[in-house]
Amino acid sequence: MTDFTATKTLFDLPPGVTYLDGNSLGPLPRATEARVARAVREEWGGHLISAWNACGWMEMPRRLGDRIGRLIGAEPGHTVIGDTLSIKVFQALAAALKLNPERRVILSDTGNFPTDLYMAEGLLKLLPEGYELRTVAPEDVAAHITEEVAVTLITEVDYRTGRRHDMARLTELAHARGALTIWDLAHSAGAFPVHMSDCHADFAVGCTYKYLNAGPGAPAFIYVAPRHADRAEPALAGWMGHAAPFAFDLGYRAGEGIERMRVGTPPVLQMAALDSALEIWDTVDLAALRTRALELGDRFIAKVEAQTDLALATPRAPEDRGSQVSFRHPEGYAVMQALIAEGVIGDFRAPDILRFGITPLYIDEADIDHAADTLARILATGTWDRPEFKARKAVT
Amino acid sequence: MTDFTATKTLFDLPPGVTYLDGNSLGPLPRATEARVARAVREEWGGHLISAWNACGWMEMPRRLGDRIGRLIGAEPGHTVIGDTLSIKVFQALAAALKLNPERRVILSDTGNFPTDLYMAEGLLKLLPEGYELRTVAPEDVAAHITEEVAVTLITEVDYRTGRRHDMARLTELAHARGALTIWDLAHSAGAFPVHMSDCHADFAVGCTYKYLNAGPGAPAFIYVAPRHADRAEPALAGWMGHAAPFAFDLGYRAGEGIERMRVGTPPVLQMAALDSALEIWDTVDLAALRTRALELGDRFIAKVEAQTDLALATPRAPEDRGSQVSFRHPEGYAVMQALIAEGVIGDFRAPDILRFGITPLYIDEADIDHAADTLARILATGTWDRPEFKARKAVT
Repeated sequence: MTDFTATKTLFDLPPGVTYLDGNSLGPLPRATEARVARAVREEWGGHLISAWNACGWMEMPRRLGDRIGRLIGAEPGHTVIGDTLSIKVFQALAAALKLNPERRVILSDTGNFPTDLYMAEGLLKLLPEGYELRTVAPEDVAAHITEEVAVTLITEVDYRTGRRHDMARLTELAHARGALTIWDLAHSAGAFPVHMSDCHADFAVGCTYKYLNAGPGAPAFIYVAPRHADRAEPALAGWMGHAAPFAFDLGYRAGEGIERMRVGTPPVLQMAALDSALEIWDTVDLAALRTRALELGDRFIAKVEAQTDLALATPRAPEDRGSQVSFRHPEGYAVMQALIAEGVIGDFRAPDILRFGITPLYIDEADIDHAADTLARILATGTWDRPEFKARKAVT
Repeated sequence: MTDFTATKTLFDLPPGVTYLDGNSLGPLPRATEARVARAVREEWGGHLISAWNACGWMEMPRRLGDRIGRLIGAEPGHTVIGDTLSIKVFQALAAALKLNPERRVILSDTGNFPTDLYMAEGLLKLLPEGYELRTVAPEDVAAHITEEVAVTLITEVDYRTGRRHDMARLTELAHARGALTIWDLAHSAGAFPVHMSDCHADFAVGCTYKYLNAGPGAPAFIYVAPRHADRAEPALAGWMGHAAPFAFDLGYRAGEGIERMRVGTPPVLQMAALDSALEIWDTVDLAALRTRALELGDRFIAKVEAQTDLALATPRAPEDRGSQVSFRHPEGYAVMQALIAEGVIGDFRAPDILRFGITPLYIDEADIDHAADTLARILATGTWDRPEFKARKAVT
């Protein structure tokens, strides 16, 4: 059983800040600065080129991948980290289409994070004519998994509303209709238990800078089901995914299993931060995390609804939502800026979404109550209605 | 005029080490640990999500790109950093083929770094049938730039021999025959002055962890000539390259110019290390660097040839070589291991290359003399001929 009072002490949050944006960028674990400094000074500075062997840098993408694998219910040895989530989406999609060569449709939904759709668009422009990206409403996905669909490309939790797809049901349906599945776990990994293996899902991708707290620009991960691992063709055929990278062969031979999803030289300093963040995750009971996140989320919904007339954008049923709570407000941008000015940090997503991440590792009842009360006060007093809160920043 | 006695004090090399492997992984600049710690503690830890605006993270890929741009003779505003070199090769190649749509041949050479060839292979498997990767001997490239060639994909300096292509001449020839050019500057940026704009080159890609000293897994860079910048179609169409990333449109619209070559969330901690490394490069006179590197290289060749019968693999003519010196030895692997055991660090490249990077920022005459003398002694005494030096390590 995870002690969430104890985990809170493992993070270094600035004084006066209530942080409900860990679903966008997780906060700094206390141990991370020293771990990164060690990678810089002792490993790079002290061992120089020999650190690739001496400090295990070369194996880190697999070793870290397996620790994430536990969080997403993957079979050991089938998850690897590297690159960014956009790149991993491209890899999974290109491989999936080759594995289902008679079909031409990628099915996604309008609740998907846009970069997934963009990467699909980019891929389609490379492929021979006839391929299609079909994007339907989230609630219509099941009905559109037809015999034309080669692969579904779906983010399990909608980044705006927090609506959660039924991974087990959609995967089963896709397989029954001859389609493969790619699950984007950006808002799932570290948010609740994920069951890649039990769901018989085909591919998963995700990032580590949100719920996993690995820091800005932390590497992404990719999972390929064991039954596809040695058949998946790597479109991004980089030397680190070669069967023998240091043979320097002129021709590409794909590495064994998940190794082939590696591309270029891995980002050692970002991996050190991820290593440190996973020290915390290694100890977390995900079922307990989920129970607590739902309790805190329900508490936030109840407190906000009792004090304001904001419309809830997140499904009420626990099984239908991820680990965020979203409300709608027509002036949501300004309301969120006013809230941030008070030290309560969530974020805004166009056109009208106020988004709050529920992250029990460092958020407790007092944080939830303070956030709800502050939001209610800002709305009651109308302090959000000022020019300085309405002026848009570059990154929202 | 750069004072190379002063630049040497800016690096933190372990005692007893003579480091001639900066062409593989540059050493740690003294200022980097503090710069990375600041990114971790103050920027990430202190500003959390707001650091994307408050600490300028979002603009860093462009800002750092321009500082590299100066080193490669690029027009300001046309270089951006991100991802790995393998990914940047893929982007440049996909864009170049679309810009020259009537042709189907990618021309490269057997001296190219293998991952460039692998990435081309991977791309060809996605494209409609008819495309071809044609790989010829380095000295035969000019003769093979025919009317069939869409784009040349060439690493300016051969990673094994140090042989340098004539960028100006090959680019002119390619253009005369209707082909575009992609230059891989992995062993050029920070090694000598590069003149992308003056050579009218079309695309360049490179890494920053070698001569530029930005650390293990540092991000890569890509340059697109101004005349192509708004026409190059991004195959890896990630949200950071979108015209309005935070509008979260469902459809992709390419950003202006080089912005479209950004893909996913940039690696902030690695960028901080690059930022620190470039503080040194901002002050370096590249012509002076080149003069000194050739002097040191000539000195190393002369000292080794005076004391051993090793065969020089690097061209003698200054204009035909990069900033490394390579010798051949049939038991090169074991010889290099014996040398490393004595604190003189170069590296081995199959099948028989002993490779030494000449990096004047932190290597001087005493280092060159010590390395040459140690190599000569190991060969004279035969100390390399031991089992422990012949046992291969994972990374060579």
